[in-house]
Amino acid sequence: MAGPQALGPAGAVVCGGGLGALVITRDSGPQPADFADVRATNLAVVLRHLRSHAPCSRADIAATTGLNKATVSSLVTDLIDRRLVREVGMTENRIGRPAMMLVLDGSPYAAVGLEINTDYLTAVALDLAGERLLSWRRAFTGTPGQPGQAIASLAALARRAVAKLERENRQVLGLTVAVPALVDADGIVELAAGLGWHQVDLRKSLTAALGDPPYPLMVENDANLAVLAEQRLGDEAGTSDLVYLTGGSSLRAGIICDGRLLRGARGFAGEFGHLPLDPAGPPCGCGRRGCLEAYAGLDAVIRQALPDAALSPSEFGPHVDEIHRLAKAGDAQVLAALTEVGRRLGHGISMLANLINPACVTLGGYFTVLAPWLIPPATAELESRSVAAQCGGTRIVASALDSSAAAAGGATRVLDAIDAGVLPPPQGAPAAR
Amino acid sequence: MAGPQALGPAGAVVCGGGLGALVITRDSGPQPADFADVRATNLAVVLRHLRSHAPCSRADIAATTGLNKATVSSLVTDLIDRRLVREVGMTENRIGRPAMMLVLDGSPYAAVGLEINTDYLTAVALDLAGERLLSWRRAFTGTPGQPGQAIASLAALARRAVAKLERENRQVLGLTVAVPALVDADGIVELAAGLGWHQVDLRKSLTAALGDPPYPLMVENDANLAVLAEQRLGDEAGTSDLVYLTGGSSLRAGIICDGRLLRGARGFAGEFGHLPLDPAGPPCGCGRRGCLEAYAGLDAVIRQALPDAALSPSEFGPHVDEIHRLAKAGDAQVLAALTEVGRRLGHGISMLANLINPACVTLGGYFTVLAPWLIPPATAELESRSVAAQCGGTRIVASALDSSAAAAGGATRVLDAIDAGVLPPPQGAPAAR
Repeated sequence: MAGPQALGPAGAVVCGGGLGALVITRDSGPQPADFADVRATNLAVVLRHLRSHAPCSRADIAATTGLNKATVSSLVTDLIDRRLVREVGMTENRIGRPAMMLVLDGSPYAAVGLEINTDYLTAVALDLAGERLLSWRRAFTGTPGQPGQAIASLAALARRAVAKLERENRQVLGLTVAVPALVDADGIVELAAGLGWHQVDLRKSLTAALGDPPYPLMVENDANLAVLAEQRLGDEAGTSDLVYLTGGSSLRAGIICDGRLLRGARGFAGEFGHLPLDPAGPPCGCGRRGCLEAYAGLDAVIRQALPDAALSPSEFGPHVDEIHRLAKAGDAQVLAALTEVGRRLGHGISMLANLINPACVTLGGYFTVLAPWLIPPATAELESRSVAAQCGGTRIVASALDSSAAAAGGATRVLDAIDAGVLPPPQGAPAAR
Repeated sequence: MAGPQALGPAGAVVCGGGLGALVITRDSGPQPADFADVRATNLAVVLRHLRSHAPCSRADIAATTGLNKATVSSLVTDLIDRRLVREVGMTENRIGRPAMMLVLDGSPYAAVGLEINTDYLTAVALDLAGERLLSWRRAFTGTPGQPGQAIASLAALARRAVAKLERENRQVLGLTVAVPALVDADGIVELAAGLGWHQVDLRKSLTAALGDPPYPLMVENDANLAVLAEQRLGDEAGTSDLVYLTGGSSLRAGIICDGRLLRGARGFAGEFGHLPLDPAGPPCGCGRRGCLEAYAGLDAVIRQALPDAALSPSEFGPHVDEIHRLAKAGDAQVLAALTEVGRRLGHGISMLANLINPACVTLGGYFTVLAPWLIPPATAELESRSVAAQCGGTRIVASALDSSAAAAGGATRVLDAIDAGVLPPPQGAPAAR
């Protein structure tokens, strides 16, 4: 009877005999759900089915999901009314009667993600099916400690992205901003060392700067959003125990355990860069000594690989290009520096791996281009420090997502809300807030 | 529309229109569920409702869960047939007609947990309602590296516990064994350093030693089981982001994030004791230097507090009693040693806290009695090393559970299977395996 699987990931379920219905999890116990919740969830079930199986017919959906045909018909009508789904014609390439095939309707909506980092801003928009509608990057040269300036830049970028999408007759479903920071559960930026921010209510300020827009606006830490993008769009899509490491001035980990984002009790999980490696190590920007960031943050990488280079955020991109060029050319100093950085990264990753045993750790940000030189020493270090044999199965790989990962994750998070049953209102109805 | 909560923990749901039903999670997408699954889940819903709200009537259950009354009646009949629920008489202390009140039936079943550690064996049995039926502890003096001897001792203890329960006419629902070890998803003990075990299929050997018993037998690491006990039975019951630290020769962390046990991709999460504190630190049993265990494992605690004491597992208990006595008496050497151990523990906890941001870290095992002297320096160290202000909300507390925590967690895990819908067969039917 009770195998280990019966006690694994949260069970999820289920259905009353007729009049009532339940929404339960193993953790929170039974909770009554009203009819509107059930309807919203079933709409999302159909939507998710179409996301992975379209084109398909109403009968296909009923057969696979277990929903009855009349229910599916009614749900599909609703989804067509909301312009989330459209009919694409009859197929006869099947046994039995020809059937009307359905697909997700990519055209009427857009989900937007923005990222602010120490040296750049990015914007990504996805349609409902996850297709990229725009992907912009521009230099950010704001003064640290001046969030007002940064918020004005973010608002300008958001306005331009939204205007472009609206010219294409798309409704913006939501906007999520990624910040290299500790962000609490209410979207307050507690501490963004690289930006010099402390206790900034970015959500409120940006909402005001955008004139109280009709779509929801969320704020989240960059690593958390990047790992959501990795899970949905990256090479490791579908891996249920996954870590994304930001590779910039600060190093944060976005952690997915058992398929779910690990945010921690107050949303502060993933502070990877300040794992202490050596009490006798170099001073770190945080005031302590020997933190991982002091060895393997982007500033430290540039300092070791290009000792004569200027350490200004506006030069990070060109410096990384130069390091990449020299590494390819076999420059001994750069290779030694990257080996040392890789070793330190592996040391930090071993702590993460011993504690949470992920299947995969992806190196993101600026690390993606340097990954061929970082991964071998990092893996060797992980192997030597892992308590479980063979690194407990943890692999270190380069993210296939570019520097837009966090912004793409912001847009992904908006789509996640749709997939979880928070649908836009039927067209013509007033927009919900 | 989409607030942060819409994207939080896995959504869970739902219900077809009539004929079909769905079991979905946000992570795995829609999955069809057959009628038997729905029935089993609804049985468990009623059971869980009674666990937290009994005594209550059928009508109460229907009103709170949203299941309709006819369904609840049928489910309750089934649960009474399985002797999981019983009627306790009519109440008139309510508006309307008197109603038959229901409670969980504690009498016919027992869930058993065992623990083997370097110096002791424990056995705990709980009834269906979580009441403790037995709690035994005995010294274990097996030779390290001889799993056969240990398995014989475990089997003898299990047989005595099961015989006692059967004399009380209880059916054993399952047995879980806690091991201070890396345990993989199949119950293979990969590595138990303290026991000198490597690649031991404990589940298979113990099943054979018990003559292929009719109840399910599981093997899990001690920290994982202890944190399950903490979540259900301890002072921190209900906390959704919780860590339990074993306090013995080896230090492992049982981690619950967002209400669910974090096992990692291969089940190797929670290796807390080998977090490296200082590359120039003392040698550790694992072959590396400066691991947390080398400073704060029980051997190190005894070595620092009682430099002249013998370091044999059979003396651990008396030594801890002596340390406790001397600490209460204000012995300077012991107090200094405990402050140093607390500081090192806080250093390790800060890594855990920066990575996963738990609400609470409970000190278990032998640390429980020493906690008054360990917690203040540990908390100070955590505070100085936490990236988030105010330790990101992480508190360090003493576990209220005694050394039977892991065994109690083993029994709890058996009950969790029941609560997740894996019910024993109706009385008289052949037992499922």
